[in-house]
Amino acid sequence: MGEVANKQVLLRGFITASPRETDLEFRVGRAELGVPDGSKAVLVKNLYLSCDPYMRGRMREYYNSYIPPFQPGSVLEGFGLAKVVASENPHFRPGDLVSGMTGWEEYSLILKTEQLRKVQVDEKIPLSYHLGLLGMPGFTAYAGFYEVCSPKKGEFVFVSAASGAVGQLVGQLAKLHGCYVVGSAGSQQKVDILKNKLGFDDAFNYKEEVDLVAALKRYFPQGIDIYFDNVGGAMLDAVLLNMRVGGRVAVCGVISQHGISDPEGLHNLSSLLFKRIRMQGFLQSDYLHLFPQFLDCIVEYYKQGKIIYIEDMTEGLESAPAALVGLFSGRNVGKQVVCVSRE
Amino acid sequence: MGEVANKQVLLRGFITASPRETDLEFRVGRAELGVPDGSKAVLVKNLYLSCDPYMRGRMREYYNSYIPPFQPGSVLEGFGLAKVVASENPHFRPGDLVSGMTGWEEYSLILKTEQLRKVQVDEKIPLSYHLGLLGMPGFTAYAGFYEVCSPKKGEFVFVSAASGAVGQLVGQLAKLHGCYVVGSAGSQQKVDILKNKLGFDDAFNYKEEVDLVAALKRYFPQGIDIYFDNVGGAMLDAVLLNMRVGGRVAVCGVISQHGISDPEGLHNLSSLLFKRIRMQGFLQSDYLHLFPQFLDCIVEYYKQGKIIYIEDMTEGLESAPAALVGLFSGRNVGKQVVCVSRE
Repeated sequence: MGEVANKQVLLRGFITASPRETDLEFRVGRAELGVPDGSKAVLVKNLYLSCDPYMRGRMREYYNSYIPPFQPGSVLEGFGLAKVVASENPHFRPGDLVSGMTGWEEYSLILKTEQLRKVQVDEKIPLSYHLGLLGMPGFTAYAGFYEVCSPKKGEFVFVSAASGAVGQLVGQLAKLHGCYVVGSAGSQQKVDILKNKLGFDDAFNYKEEVDLVAALKRYFPQGIDIYFDNVGGAMLDAVLLNMRVGGRVAVCGVISQHGISDPEGLHNLSSLLFKRIRMQGFLQSDYLHLFPQFLDCIVEYYKQGKIIYIEDMTEGLESAPAALVGLFSGRNVGKQVVCVSRE
Repeated sequence: MGEVANKQVLLRGFITASPRETDLEFRVGRAELGVPDGSKAVLVKNLYLSCDPYMRGRMREYYNSYIPPFQPGSVLEGFGLAKVVASENPHFRPGDLVSGMTGWEEYSLILKTEQLRKVQVDEKIPLSYHLGLLGMPGFTAYAGFYEVCSPKKGEFVFVSAASGAVGQLVGQLAKLHGCYVVGSAGSQQKVDILKNKLGFDDAFNYKEEVDLVAALKRYFPQGIDIYFDNVGGAMLDAVLLNMRVGGRVAVCGVISQHGISDPEGLHNLSSLLFKRIRMQGFLQSDYLHLFPQFLDCIVEYYKQGKIIYIEDMTEGLESAPAALVGLFSGRNVGKQVVCVSRE
């Protein structure tokens, strides 16, 4: 099938601070459009790439996490939605649409195909949703809310980074569960989306609050039963003082701490004891047995118009470095996706 | 029955720092040895009083805890083992031995009898054990270990304040469960007790370790599955960096923070996410339905010689202020009890 030009995004070197565009390199390389005989590999054309906060962890020289770092000088990896071009794997045929770990480039040779999922095309659902609503972030929201938060009807739920890829679904699932839901976000535009489009009971811009403890007390005079934590840091500390007895904190992300080598101290952990709080970190990958029921549930809700999903789509692989970096300043509005090619 | 002299210990005023003996007042008051007609109250003679770290919380002017503060100028309250002298309550008769909340004095009129438990005398078990091994601290260990820690055979368990009223039982239960158990304590004497009397696999004096993270790495090269936390603060922060994936932290006490108005910051909460750790605060009072099975289990273990219990007993109510204050500098060796009268 021959060799073609292959746009790529590489990591220049390990970082210690928040990611900058200059930490990444855009270049036009070459790709061989074939698959080694008997390799079980597939060659894909990447259509959509997902920008996710956890990727910052892979840009550090830190080997103790649940996922190894990227290699300096190598193409970034991330979740993507791609079309199979060539295959030596009996489970995949040219033309199949797949989601899973792929490279930040136009064409990728995928050697590890165990986690690759075939995607059923459904005209009523945008393809890119398989990276968000129906992908890892959506499943994170689903597993975290139902499996970690132990929600009950009528409970008071707080979601930080609430308009993000995960938060927007958590809030909607909580509403469908009969909870009272308040979200925080970093701009008035996002607050408006939470209240007017996503159906949150209330929302606030945390950047405009000088006293987070007081702000939470205002929005939750009765206290918080469930905190779905996407940010960590000062917000988590403030939430701990506003939890109700028997409350639960699902620790999903620590985006506020991503640029900080020496993380902020938390001072209110005694609340765990006084309020008998359960605080639990989780990864969606520990709940993969629930993925099929997640898909059934969310596809059904979506088709019934009970949930919506907001994406922030940029065009072209050239835009990928800025899109990824923008996550850490909250520039994206909704799930950040890069469109490499529409087909 | 008339009026008699009644030794008492009172709180002088609310405190903000660690408790000192001068915060408490010993005096000889008077007691009326009768019960108001139709009151359902009982009058008891206190035999043993329990000194527990949670009592420090009741010495502060803080109303948001699970238990209200003591009243300045009033007699302290705490768990005690007492003999009924007079009763207007059909469930209790003169001569009965009872355990429950009583006053720090020789004779107490107990109006709220709902939580009072009749104690079965068993010649093989010291009466004072109903304040420790068979009382609130023992039950805290039992409920915390079995209900909060979700222990599995072969897991690596770390207990802080391990020779204390709760810790010594947690460690022994963990050993009986087939776990590997290491404890920390604040003196060589306590370390020796942990290793030589209580059957811990290993133990160390935290005061002699300059780097707690490194110390824990030495004692748990494979990491920690379960941390039974009696102290909070810097030790908890160090443990978080040494936890294994899927680990559990039971937050039972924060004795390291009792004297501090502005608690130490915790910096390693990100481990909750990376290691998918569940961290849970609990109170034994949330598990009272398990109390009968706890008693059956622990009495059986004790009679079989499978567990032992170490008490630090002081004589006379006059010694009570020093005994309580000593908890916060770790002066006690084992469960601190005050003997007011042997019968």
